[in-house]
Amino acid sequence: MSVDPVALTADLIRCPSVTPEEGGALVLLEDLLSKAGFTCTRVDRNGTSNLFARWGNRGANRSFGFNGHTDVVPVGDEAAWTVPPFGAVEKDGMLWGRGATDMKSGVAAFAAAAIDFVTDTPPDGAVILAITGDEEGDATDGTTALLDWMRDNNEAMTDCLVGEPTSPNVMGEMMKIGRRGSMTAWFEVTGVQGHSAYPHRARNPLPALARLMDRLASHELDQGTDHFDASTLAIVTMDTGNPATNVIPAACRGAVNIRFSDAHSGDSLSDWLRAEAEVVAEDFGVKIVTRIKVSGESFVTPPGALSDLIARAVKDETGVTPELSTSGGTSDARFVKDHCPVVEFGLVGKTMHQVDERVEIAQIHQLKAIYSRILRDYFA
Amino acid sequence: MSVDPVALTADLIRCPSVTPEEGGALVLLEDLLSKAGFTCTRVDRNGTSNLFARWGNRGANRSFGFNGHTDVVPVGDEAAWTVPPFGAVEKDGMLWGRGATDMKSGVAAFAAAAIDFVTDTPPDGAVILAITGDEEGDATDGTTALLDWMRDNNEAMTDCLVGEPTSPNVMGEMMKIGRRGSMTAWFEVTGVQGHSAYPHRARNPLPALARLMDRLASHELDQGTDHFDASTLAIVTMDTGNPATNVIPAACRGAVNIRFSDAHSGDSLSDWLRAEAEVVAEDFGVKIVTRIKVSGESFVTPPGALSDLIARAVKDETGVTPELSTSGGTSDARFVKDHCPVVEFGLVGKTMHQVDERVEIAQIHQLKAIYSRILRDYFA
Repeated sequence: MSVDPVALTADLIRCPSVTPEEGGALVLLEDLLSKAGFTCTRVDRNGTSNLFARWGNRGANRSFGFNGHTDVVPVGDEAAWTVPPFGAVEKDGMLWGRGATDMKSGVAAFAAAAIDFVTDTPPDGAVILAITGDEEGDATDGTTALLDWMRDNNEAMTDCLVGEPTSPNVMGEMMKIGRRGSMTAWFEVTGVQGHSAYPHRARNPLPALARLMDRLASHELDQGTDHFDASTLAIVTMDTGNPATNVIPAACRGAVNIRFSDAHSGDSLSDWLRAEAEVVAEDFGVKIVTRIKVSGESFVTPPGALSDLIARAVKDETGVTPELSTSGGTSDARFVKDHCPVVEFGLVGKTMHQVDERVEIAQIHQLKAIYSRILRDYFA
Repeated sequence: MSVDPVALTADLIRCPSVTPEEGGALVLLEDLLSKAGFTCTRVDRNGTSNLFARWGNRGANRSFGFNGHTDVVPVGDEAAWTVPPFGAVEKDGMLWGRGATDMKSGVAAFAAAAIDFVTDTPPDGAVILAITGDEEGDATDGTTALLDWMRDNNEAMTDCLVGEPTSPNVMGEMMKIGRRGSMTAWFEVTGVQGHSAYPHRARNPLPALARLMDRLASHELDQGTDHFDASTLAIVTMDTGNPATNVIPAACRGAVNIRFSDAHSGDSLSDWLRAEAEVVAEDFGVKIVTRIKVSGESFVTPPGALSDLIARAVKDETGVTPELSTSGGTSDARFVKDHCPVVEFGLVGKTMHQVDERVEIAQIHQLKAIYSRILRDYFA
């Protein structure tokens, strides 16, 4: 059996699955996978659709999992598209449409690879596809729901590959073995309003904010670790809204965003931020209220058997040795990492989320070939 | 002859001379002064009304001048007043109405004192009243217009007293011999927009603004001089308007307001501000555009014959020795100081510009007595 990953990508693009709509994409995959002998379960939660598919026995010695999503971001300014966003037009050697890169081609490639593999050379183990319809939205009832359901139903992946686009420019140049943590802190500084001519009668919150922001931005969090670039802190805003130059305002606010390596945790950085705010508040005699949101902790699957296997397969199919990176934004790997070792590898991500999103047709075939080789090597 | 300064204040309050309206106030004074033998000239410019009145000869050896204004600030929330704002109601030992303190009582007191003096004991010299209808507004065609006209017509004051309210709480406690300078600087910092996750690809303007503001606010301008308190710098605003925590903004801005002693000038401080901005711009690789407005230079009439004379008169009439201060906001003394030595002395300023503006009737009499004594001593 041989499933054409390009035709499957095109079929998926034609499903208007703008997050959180299922749009027919998971129904299409469930039908295809069921016919190929996969046990399929729709794992829907709070109106969000997800699909769990397993070939082989539950509780098999080894099971290799693929994770991906069929939901896509909105088309944006539809008039700016040169093709219908859900038309799956083929031209100039490329397949065009919303989700072409992120990541219906990835899902199609691993589904096609998995079906071919279990059909042609049934392995001693299980192949699992955990596909969600809620990655681009809040992601509260997507991969998390699949993993919760798997735990409750004794379903397990030994290792997992997330098929998100990972390479900035050249096919094969990058895989992701983890991600930096991300957090934001907001500071509200309150003093006492007054007249600019009599600053001693007021308590100006602005010098305190300037000092706090300067201290935070000047601090070296780390110089990078084995698998991470140096952590970064960016001041993202400082605001007052005082139009009167003869008035010292009562309050002002600022915010910083931190991307952090495994040298830190959300908790350790929160402690540091609050301590800095306290020092400055005391020095300037003002009140500083600190609010912190940790969007994700840093994580890494240390280089080893899984990353070696994937890097070899990529090299064999593309001639390029992928860098093992922890850069970039967030993905569902942050949930999977609590379940089993996880690595991400997929297409070049250039046009994702853009108008005229498109993918080179040859690269869809190449991606299926890489995934096929990974499965063969894994179960060899 | 004896002019009642309370009745004259009440008559002036009944003229609705909300700046820049003449409201009948200057007409009333011109009539009164002309009858008392003053040579009166209406010096109107660009629709603004002013009154120049001289008793004695032009080109007299010595001439003592009074400066004041008859225009008043708007009544504000009229419903919040417990009396009609232009009613000049007398109750509880006080005279109520807009301008009661600032400064129709002051004008009435010096007009009454001057008329009595020249009538009862004609001096060897001239007494000049330079009264404007444009002090509370832009002040571009007020005292400036009077001084321009005087220069063009060979009119001169040897010394001048501005009758603005000067005491914070107790009658007689403060006279003003000068004022601090005032200026505002706005800084627009421009970098390169980017993603918070990749600060090395952006050029964040916010750390530069924080550093610049911290440097400026931490700097000691001076520790005060003979006649001035220490200069002060207040950060009055910092703004960005970036709601997205994953975006490094392209630009941000801040402003500082400086009140400065005679250790500085608007030019010397402008040079310092621009130099600081340049250092920070270079350190952070951003662009900083600095815009500066000097509202007024510092000035002082050094303590001497004039201030001694006035202080003695105040002490004799009130028992209080006035502090020689350079504190507070701006007044027309900043124009007069280029013409002749100038000192300010007037009432307690507590209710100026407020709803239910009012003045103690006894203090109007006291102020006339002080001004009368000043004239007697000056020409003795």
